[in-house]
Amino acid sequence: MKSTGQAVAVDVMGGDGGISSVIKGIARALKLFPDEIGDLVLVGDEGEISKHVNGIKFRSNARNIEICHASQSIDMTEKPMSALRNKKDSSMLKAIGLLKDGIVSGLLSCGNTGCLVAGGTLRLRTMPGIDRPALASVIPAPGNHFVLIDVGANPSTSTINFVHNAAMGSLYYQTAVDSSKKPRVGLLTIGTEEGKGGEAIGEAHEMLKKINGEINYFGLIEGFQLFNDAVDVVVCDGFVGNILLKTIESLAGTINNYVKAEMKKNPLRMLGAILANGAFRAMKRDLTADRYGGAPLLGLNGTVVKSHGSSSPEAVAHALRLTFGLSKIANERILGSAIERINALI
Amino acid sequence: MKSTGQAVAVDVMGGDGGISSVIKGIARALKLFPDEIGDLVLVGDEGEISKHVNGIKFRSNARNIEICHASQSIDMTEKPMSALRNKKDSSMLKAIGLLKDGIVSGLLSCGNTGCLVAGGTLRLRTMPGIDRPALASVIPAPGNHFVLIDVGANPSTSTINFVHNAAMGSLYYQTAVDSSKKPRVGLLTIGTEEGKGGEAIGEAHEMLKKINGEINYFGLIEGFQLFNDAVDVVVCDGFVGNILLKTIESLAGTINNYVKAEMKKNPLRMLGAILANGAFRAMKRDLTADRYGGAPLLGLNGTVVKSHGSSSPEAVAHALRLTFGLSKIANERILGSAIERINALI
Repeated sequence: MKSTGQAVAVDVMGGDGGISSVIKGIARALKLFPDEIGDLVLVGDEGEISKHVNGIKFRSNARNIEICHASQSIDMTEKPMSALRNKKDSSMLKAIGLLKDGIVSGLLSCGNTGCLVAGGTLRLRTMPGIDRPALASVIPAPGNHFVLIDVGANPSTSTINFVHNAAMGSLYYQTAVDSSKKPRVGLLTIGTEEGKGGEAIGEAHEMLKKINGEINYFGLIEGFQLFNDAVDVVVCDGFVGNILLKTIESLAGTINNYVKAEMKKNPLRMLGAILANGAFRAMKRDLTADRYGGAPLLGLNGTVVKSHGSSSPEAVAHALRLTFGLSKIANERILGSAIERINALI
Repeated sequence: MKSTGQAVAVDVMGGDGGISSVIKGIARALKLFPDEIGDLVLVGDEGEISKHVNGIKFRSNARNIEICHASQSIDMTEKPMSALRNKKDSSMLKAIGLLKDGIVSGLLSCGNTGCLVAGGTLRLRTMPGIDRPALASVIPAPGNHFVLIDVGANPSTSTINFVHNAAMGSLYYQTAVDSSKKPRVGLLTIGTEEGKGGEAIGEAHEMLKKINGEINYFGLIEGFQLFNDAVDVVVCDGFVGNILLKTIESLAGTINNYVKAEMKKNPLRMLGAILANGAFRAMKRDLTADRYGGAPLLGLNGTVVKSHGSSSPEAVAHALRLTFGLSKIANERILGSAIERINALI
């Protein structure tokens, strides 16, 4: 490893689209964001990686692209504890090891979420003051892109997890969406009357009111407020967040396909579609999730970004850009002192 | 009360749109579904009701429309137990009383969901073999309208509740969407590998496999499968279901408004929109929730339908039609014997 420590490791195995779509995504990132992508360490089967890299025109320029061979890969159905025990030479665990040892400053994986959360937590450990990491994702709502946290790292989120996730989500919003805004934070429940939604949410609501100032707490919100520009950060448990994220993405895609199909049903509509093509391009630009292809696993000692298992090369490219972005800023130090102040208040 | 027992009671108070939008919805139902709407008992403030009824041209024909005066109404923020204690003369509790006493055969309310669930459960009691009622809602997905159950009656759904909700959701699908189909049932979780998603879901999954035959169990599903025509009935806990329902409705509305706004941005697009108008009409027809404006509270001794607090008159009209439909069929007997067989199997 010649890596200087400023590189990012990419776990190229384990995604649904196979190694090819990850490598294509890297090539796309090098083309789209030439100034933001630095040195890379591709972790996985060396022979496979070389084959795919050679097949694609990499505009690597002055970048150093190394391969770190891993003889195993973790598949999507593997259970975390079994993978951690039996797949020590897997691309994912080797990539986590590179990050732990300071050989790289960030890590991107399209692999098994459960294994990434478990492996990341055990090897890198959570930051001081935080006991569970959380996955954050930006949801592209028209006119108001918001952060949803947690989208699946921790299905049984506790009171204190909700509070920490509010702080982590706020900081992530400023990094990924709008650095000039103090994001409004909402806690998602099923009825905004106090007392509804269970004990952990009720207690977290009280704590969040107490630390208002550290974060910009809006209050309890319901599902219908997500796309109403009510808040910029939506805090929920990892079970609800994961279902919501997948449902939202699938519904947006379904409506998109539906409109396209309806537009092709007769020549008049097709002409209409051609005339209104700009509107459809805007829709694709504003409402697809690709530009936010990565979900960082926040709260660990190190930058770990998860990209969808089924990520398109476009999504991988944006996720790689995000990994470099997050690995370069002092998020951990900023977050660390915010968490210290919050833990002292509650 | 002259009512013959075949009438439906409508709690006209307590909706966000006020009494006026409920009365307008009833008028709309009488116009749209003249053969399906029967005698009505309007429960609420007599003076207010008379005023609104007189202001609208009711095509009541031979129907008997009575008013049952209630001096109180339950507002949206009221807590169930307090309302049950202090609002005995409220329109909602009086309407539930009419159903319990057999004066009407069904009940429609746009009011406070928590109070309707608590009041319905305490006064009408759950059917033999079922310990908690569930709210079911039809979600209009293109080409595959599906039932989501529970959308908010029981936020902490237990193993056996999941199983009963699968049976109730199946029967409701046949009543509301397609009577010729044996609906495929999916249990919503965050990863379809067995063991993910918590204990109650894992146990319910095993029980549902066991009673496959009584219901058509597809298995565990994830959020991205909701709009993929994977199943016809989606079973989830009332917390997740309520958030999902509200998010889906709000996202569909947001995209609709977004497309409309984009289409008006310049004359070329406007011309395109006019040519493709049929596609937008189809979109409105296929994707809006109005035609499924009501969510029945299943598992009680009696037909209770909840309509959104913010229902449009169109949605109230469809919910009223649904209430008559459900009150006329022997759902309770069919469901009762299915539950008996299921409880014997597990």
